[in-house]
Amino acid sequence: MNFVAALSETAEKNLRELEEHIRQAISDDAFIFEACEPLIRGGKRLRPMLMLLCANAKTSCPNERTMPLATALELIHTASLVHDDIIDTSKKRRGVETANSKYGAQIAVLIGDYLFAKAFQLVAENNYDGRVQAILSKLVKNLCVGEIMQDRSLFVVPTMTEYYQRINLKTAIFLSSCCQLGAIVADIDSRDGESLAAYGTSLGLAFQIIDDVLDFVGDEKVTGKPRGGDLKSGVITLPVIRALSTSDEAPALKKIVTGGAVTCTDIDAAIEIIRATDAVNYCKTRAEAHIEAARVNLPSNLKTSVGLALEQIAEFVVARTR
Amino acid sequence: MNFVAALSETAEKNLRELEEHIRQAISDDAFIFEACEPLIRGGKRLRPMLMLLCANAKTSCPNERTMPLATALELIHTASLVHDDIIDTSKKRRGVETANSKYGAQIAVLIGDYLFAKAFQLVAENNYDGRVQAILSKLVKNLCVGEIMQDRSLFVVPTMTEYYQRINLKTAIFLSSCCQLGAIVADIDSRDGESLAAYGTSLGLAFQIIDDVLDFVGDEKVTGKPRGGDLKSGVITLPVIRALSTSDEAPALKKIVTGGAVTCTDIDAAIEIIRATDAVNYCKTRAEAHIEAARVNLPSNLKTSVGLALEQIAEFVVARTR
Repeated sequence: MNFVAALSETAEKNLRELEEHIRQAISDDAFIFEACEPLIRGGKRLRPMLMLLCANAKTSCPNERTMPLATALELIHTASLVHDDIIDTSKKRRGVETANSKYGAQIAVLIGDYLFAKAFQLVAENNYDGRVQAILSKLVKNLCVGEIMQDRSLFVVPTMTEYYQRINLKTAIFLSSCCQLGAIVADIDSRDGESLAAYGTSLGLAFQIIDDVLDFVGDEKVTGKPRGGDLKSGVITLPVIRALSTSDEAPALKKIVTGGAVTCTDIDAAIEIIRATDAVNYCKTRAEAHIEAARVNLPSNLKTSVGLALEQIAEFVVARTR
Repeated sequence: MNFVAALSETAEKNLRELEEHIRQAISDDAFIFEACEPLIRGGKRLRPMLMLLCANAKTSCPNERTMPLATALELIHTASLVHDDIIDTSKKRRGVETANSKYGAQIAVLIGDYLFAKAFQLVAENNYDGRVQAILSKLVKNLCVGEIMQDRSLFVVPTMTEYYQRINLKTAIFLSSCCQLGAIVADIDSRDGESLAAYGTSLGLAFQIIDDVLDFVGDEKVTGKPRGGDLKSGVITLPVIRALSTSDEAPALKKIVTGGAVTCTDIDAAIEIIRATDAVNYCKTRAEAHIEAARVNLPSNLKTSVGLALEQIAEFVVARTR
């Protein structure tokens, strides 16, 4: 299931226009284009699409206003993935070889920096409200703090609070900011803007929980990432936290996930232990609860097509397989 | 020689206030502060100081206007150094252990990202002219392109044009932007603003040439960096380019610098070959020429104390030992 299926004709058209803007944005430098184009190609475009939908939630907002910012959001997301792949020393992302694996950590750092800078340049050159830059820079800062938090406690089992704090910083604030930015760009009143932001927060929590589940149950051919990647790099997520508190084999699981050096055999064993528990269903139930909260937060006075699309994105987030 | 000696009492006071702002800016998160404080401590503050001086070039510009931007410039510079040290896998910088060496590449990437984001946040939250964000983001973009250019041609002898293109992107545009930003913040007329920017460009070219010379002749205790670091990481700079075109031992030198794996014995041999030529003097002469151009570009109608400080910074740049 692809969330594009949930979109109206206008939104689909916007998505196609966005692709053109993204390609344009990375075309300043031939090497950058060559390096970034494959990385950017396979994305779901969830972040810019949320922003575009929210900007059109009440009345139509001209694409000249929305596209540079939507593009900036996807560039920031891609930059963070590029840097993430250095951190996780991942080999594959979005089904293609990572920048880290192809060009080495050195160039991957710079490609990420370039994409961040280009995003801020796009926004600076399009006369957005001052709040836009502030929200974007805080979003990036929070992403970093979330990642640092994660990286400093590899192979350590987080408490539920720590887990939620991390996924809020890493994902929920990002999606929430996309919604908030759409509302700002379209001058939507602050009450509805806050509701859209709250929708984004809940959506983000659900999104990250499902992401963490997919690391264990996803089809590698569909997710584009090797299974058990989180475990291998020491990132302990909700399915593990749950399995540790319910499985008879918790001690064996704990030994693997906190051991520090995880082999492929370990990953298979851990996945087996986790899948023998209710962890996957438990996580899905939690994600569904956040999706309910997201739906409840949606203002009732949105354009029908946008309200529908936002509802369907929420559905997609829990039903998705990649 | 420290360029602070060149400053008036007011400028010195500003510099002390800047230190407080910088410390404040990295205090959001305890770990970030712990990681960044030693990295930021030893800097020369050349970039923010140029901006502060230019902002006060005609009349006094209130510190509330200048300090957040000056702080942002130093954070961006530090961020680029932190990422640079991953790229060069350097162990020491500003006399202390690099983030890369202390926390690993993963955390170092994130610390750099955090500092970039924090810089943009400071600017976004202080209602600067829209041009400020655009200049900052372009400056970071150019830094990345310069570094990528460098990193993609390690162990390759650049042409003179390629060398100048690289140091322009890496350093001259940054210093020039600092001057330009000072002029913008203080509403200095565009003609004088452009002259100050031109001063910054020439200063930057001279600064980077001297930096490249110091890699061969600097005292490690003073520079805070191991000697021959550029050679070791494959970065071929002006002294090498010159020595290759004049030394009898050019073939041996070329073999070392393009060989791909440089040992300590190689570095010593290369330094010996280079120092037996006129390369160091040649580079200093070139740097002095840029400094002359910088001086010529200085508008004649600046406040005496600022004009003097900018002249003395120019002198410092060629006389410096770190």
